[in-house]
Amino acid sequence: MKRREFHALGLGALLASAAGAAGAAEAPGAAPAPGGGGSAPKKLRVGMLVYPDMVLLDLVGPQTVFSLLMAEIHLVGRDRQPVATDVGLPVQPTTTFAECPGSLDVLFVPGGLKGTVAVMDDRALLGFLAERGREARYVTSVCTGGLLLGAAGLLRGYRASAHWYVRDLLPLMGATASAERVTVDRNRVTGGGVTAGLDFALRLAALLRGDEYARRIQLVLEYDPQPPFAAGSPERAGAALADEVRARRAPLLAAARAASERAGKRLGT
Amino acid sequence: MKRREFHALGLGALLASAAGAAGAAEAPGAAPAPGGGGSAPKKLRVGMLVYPDMVLLDLVGPQTVFSLLMAEIHLVGRDRQPVATDVGLPVQPTTTFAECPGSLDVLFVPGGLKGTVAVMDDRALLGFLAERGREARYVTSVCTGGLLLGAAGLLRGYRASAHWYVRDLLPLMGATASAERVTVDRNRVTGGGVTAGLDFALRLAALLRGDEYARRIQLVLEYDPQPPFAAGSPERAGAALADEVRARRAPLLAAARAASERAGKRLGT
Repeated sequence: MKRREFHALGLGALLASAAGAAGAAEAPGAAPAPGGGGSAPKKLRVGMLVYPDMVLLDLVGPQTVFSLLMAEIHLVGRDRQPVATDVGLPVQPTTTFAECPGSLDVLFVPGGLKGTVAVMDDRALLGFLAERGREARYVTSVCTGGLLLGAAGLLRGYRASAHWYVRDLLPLMGATASAERVTVDRNRVTGGGVTAGLDFALRLAALLRGDEYARRIQLVLEYDPQPPFAAGSPERAGAALADEVRARRAPLLAAARAASERAGKRLGT
Repeated sequence: MKRREFHALGLGALLASAAGAAGAAEAPGAAPAPGGGGSAPKKLRVGMLVYPDMVLLDLVGPQTVFSLLMAEIHLVGRDRQPVATDVGLPVQPTTTFAECPGSLDVLFVPGGLKGTVAVMDDRALLGFLAERGREARYVTSVCTGGLLLGAAGLLRGYRASAHWYVRDLLPLMGATASAERVTVDRNRVTGGGVTAGLDFALRLAALLRGDEYARRIQLVLEYDPQPPFAAGSPERAGAALADEVRARRAPLLAAARAASERAGKRLGT
């Protein structure tokens, strides 16, 4: 199925004219699209890391928004074998670390729990992130994916967000922890836990294609949230509940410390 | 992989004690769990419809919440062939209309655009919904999935929500259209478009397992939304933008009218 037909079947059908109209105007301050004549915007190229036991919603929220940007989306895995996710649905990579096209507009890293722990010392994966992160227009993550960007050395000297329950581990990676739901620091755009992926992706959509286009996507996704409880952050949920959840992070803490030590050794400190 | 191990890899690891503690207490007013002795709650059984060209986020948002309820989740398709979704990721059904286990606590229907149109006269699919909907503890949908519940005759005499851009078509199915993000009318629980699936699923989690458990899930998902724009509803986005999107609904309108006529003929009116 061609890309155009694929979008026509999805929510993109509701945006068809918007994609032409709003998409033609790059966001103010955004890098001009190289090449490509006329008013058609350069097609965005997005590389989304996939790895075993990642949190599927970390991926699918942003992927839905990127899809509505009519972006060329690559799901990048170690190989093309389907990877398991937290909810059981497997995700099949569309390309590999070695074969992923270059010149990414967005490099994106989703989170996971034991999944993130398992890859935090994966040299092939971290090498891919470090290499593509040097040249990507935006280097991004949600949830514990920020720890992977950090382990790849991509957050040194940057402010960054991550899932609240590991946020304070970001300084182990040389980053300044931000409590914002989405943190934009130069070309690093990082989000908080899981559902922050929606806020993150809409912010990034605005950076890439302008506020008007992002507003249309928000309308098509009916993103007018009304959470049933005031419990979505540790401050709102209360210390007792937050501490109970945070107590379960020992494996991530150990992996982040080990990554920090490895990075220190590489730097000769 | 056993179910317990599967949850241990996912976000459920953060809820392990909550699942035992909060899960042991049924929500006030919830139907008592039949069978099963001691304090362990009955395991919830959830059937989630999957069909070609559905919106993946409609499924994955609620699925993530249901997964954190440690529910037994069945993805129910016409057959076991993977179905395409709006973002390209295929979803493989785990069971079929004929083989889906009975006694569902939740029957759930996601939305789609042309995907929903294509199945709105699918007798096997609507027959499955009608039959399981009669006996399910909760009959639920998000997005345009409400039109499918309606086409199956399950919303006659009920208030219901759907994606804003098809909400006014619900009366064609004998339902009263609700502008609420999540509408609970007896055992029908229906949500608005796409991202409303999160609010929907947390409301349903509270009905099934109590407010305290639902609050823990909301904290683990860091669901403390901060949309970047005030554009998530037609009222907020403005009439011009909403009308432009709504103009693209002709195929859904035609399918809903045809479904309404078929239902009228069945009723002999």
